[in-house]
Amino acid sequence: MNESVKSAEQAKPAEPTDHSQRVDPAQFTCPVELRDYPRVILGHGGGGALSRELIEKIFLPAFGNRLLNQLSDSTLLEVPAGRLAFSTDSYVVRPLFFPGGSIGDLAVNGTVNDLAMSGAQPAFLSAAFILEEGFSLGELVAVVQEMARAAGAAGVSIVTGDTKVVERGHGDGCYITTSGIGIVPEGVAIGRSPPAPGDAVLLSGSIGDHGMAIMSVREGLAFESPIISDTAPLHHLVAAMLKACPAIRWLRDPTRGGVATSLNEIALQAEVGIVIEEGAIPVTPAVESACEILGLDPLLVANEGKLLAIVPAEATAAVLAAMQADRAGREAAVIGRVVADHPGMVVATTRFGAKRVIPLPIGEQLPRIC
Amino acid sequence: MNESVKSAEQAKPAEPTDHSQRVDPAQFTCPVELRDYPRVILGHGGGGALSRELIEKIFLPAFGNRLLNQLSDSTLLEVPAGRLAFSTDSYVVRPLFFPGGSIGDLAVNGTVNDLAMSGAQPAFLSAAFILEEGFSLGELVAVVQEMARAAGAAGVSIVTGDTKVVERGHGDGCYITTSGIGIVPEGVAIGRSPPAPGDAVLLSGSIGDHGMAIMSVREGLAFESPIISDTAPLHHLVAAMLKACPAIRWLRDPTRGGVATSLNEIALQAEVGIVIEEGAIPVTPAVESACEILGLDPLLVANEGKLLAIVPAEATAAVLAAMQADRAGREAAVIGRVVADHPGMVVATTRFGAKRVIPLPIGEQLPRIC
Repeated sequence: MNESVKSAEQAKPAEPTDHSQRVDPAQFTCPVELRDYPRVILGHGGGGALSRELIEKIFLPAFGNRLLNQLSDSTLLEVPAGRLAFSTDSYVVRPLFFPGGSIGDLAVNGTVNDLAMSGAQPAFLSAAFILEEGFSLGELVAVVQEMARAAGAAGVSIVTGDTKVVERGHGDGCYITTSGIGIVPEGVAIGRSPPAPGDAVLLSGSIGDHGMAIMSVREGLAFESPIISDTAPLHHLVAAMLKACPAIRWLRDPTRGGVATSLNEIALQAEVGIVIEEGAIPVTPAVESACEILGLDPLLVANEGKLLAIVPAEATAAVLAAMQADRAGREAAVIGRVVADHPGMVVATTRFGAKRVIPLPIGEQLPRIC
Repeated sequence: MNESVKSAEQAKPAEPTDHSQRVDPAQFTCPVELRDYPRVILGHGGGGALSRELIEKIFLPAFGNRLLNQLSDSTLLEVPAGRLAFSTDSYVVRPLFFPGGSIGDLAVNGTVNDLAMSGAQPAFLSAAFILEEGFSLGELVAVVQEMARAAGAAGVSIVTGDTKVVERGHGDGCYITTSGIGIVPEGVAIGRSPPAPGDAVLLSGSIGDHGMAIMSVREGLAFESPIISDTAPLHHLVAAMLKACPAIRWLRDPTRGGVATSLNEIALQAEVGIVIEEGAIPVTPAVESACEILGLDPLLVANEGKLLAIVPAEATAAVLAAMQADRAGREAAVIGRVVADHPGMVVATTRFGAKRVIPLPIGEQLPRIC
């Protein structure tokens, strides 16, 4: 049996409650008050009193709401009849905190955005933590507070959760998996007809900010203006776009693998060609410099607060105006179009007028970016 | 950048598709066909072509269904108006395969059971994988097939998912987080009134089997009859019990922390006392021997296919009969009752007629049991 678990079981409770006072304290003989130990121990994942302390002292104060407070194995939700969106993502970003955000923001906004891409209004999230033995409880509190803040900003509730602890050397501080349920309003018709030649490709803002914010920390790069992750919820932007055109052909937030991956996926799936104008794609000077230094293509770098849309040509102006009127889409631009040529392939026109194929990336240039 | 990612990006595709044939093969210069590499590499978590291969070659063949095949960031579900149950759990069990089951069974049955304890009929699951670089793809296939088999047996669909890869030494092969959505039938009234003195405490079968199956593998113990995990879905059993008594007071599957933890939780929450008869609790001879050898109390050992119920006294016989008529409840027994004495405390009468307090365990005797 693991040493710290043994000690934890023998530890004297730091703050005896009415109930623990009834328990014979003679069984608690360890003089070290491990329940005040400022780091995660295996016992925190055991489902007993230490797990309960994590829930009562860390999770409930941050997330607390009527539904989570049920503290049962599952949470009961009242939903209207109709369509729900359901999504899940694990977050393993390294480091846990980076310029502009944290794993807590990503774990909320990433899943909120996956729901939003179906046109859903995100409503409920679950949160499952895999903690590494020895992880600082102070850092856990900071992560959880960031999640709570992001959930509040996005208007979603964290209604159920779980915590497991793995031995030192079998994790990396904190991994978080969130799942989300969103409610798709009646009339939303995203994807009713697939992308077709003539459609416009729109992008909601500058690309590469999230990936390069992470890389600038990992590589210790400093720029005149720091690179800040773009992590943000996008469901308000999507709602505004759907108001302008309920039958948007396709929406995707280009996270891992960046714009190149998302556009290749839709080109392959819909068997259409896509042409983009590199000069039309917003990239901040800092991201451009960082990409040049590190030899990366901004089209392949992850974003956490941007979306791509394919819309019927006749709706382009209306959707673009709706995007630019929303805070999350101020820099939105038309970056390309769907073509009948080269189905399944994405081709970029460079700033110098040359053409290059943008292939589907094989792996990932930047591991653990989200 | 990580070595294997670099190599993966340069790897020559093993089976060129129509689309990859259009890409200049000159960029793929690595002579090692890493895409045939039988282990997980970081690129499998990158969202690009390698991620797509995992999905197309491993996940879809096992889980494939109309909903998962949408392959979008979230899945659209049609649900009736009413109550849904929503639950999540991460699974970090070690070893991944053990007598009677695997992490794949647990990841399905554990979440199915969390939903079932609300009286819900489990319907949809998500599955998020955190894989460690170097994990065998063959083992991943075996885990995924076990998940698919368990999902089929439980009548649920895995409708959305995610895969992340972490560097070697930051995981342990495979962690899985599942979330589930269940539909609560009209008329289910579990928990409408809280446990009250006079209520009966029922248990669906023998305890300690899962935890001791894991421990027997870890400790290399062999018994005349091997100990087999009890992992099983319980929603059919719950449905039968609800038919006998729609207003069951409380249901819980005693996983981590065992029966002792679950009963203490409800005693504390409902501010009632609970008395159990140790002699009435089914324990197999093999589990009893193993617990004696290892110095463990079966009441504290995890179960993965058992449930505890608190029911009004007058419904006891009907619920017990319904349980015993179901395959998952054949050995069901009345093990105790709710009392007005010692609120918040669980007391056991031993086989020798003595009484002992069963405290809420502090940590976990058996880390990574699920």
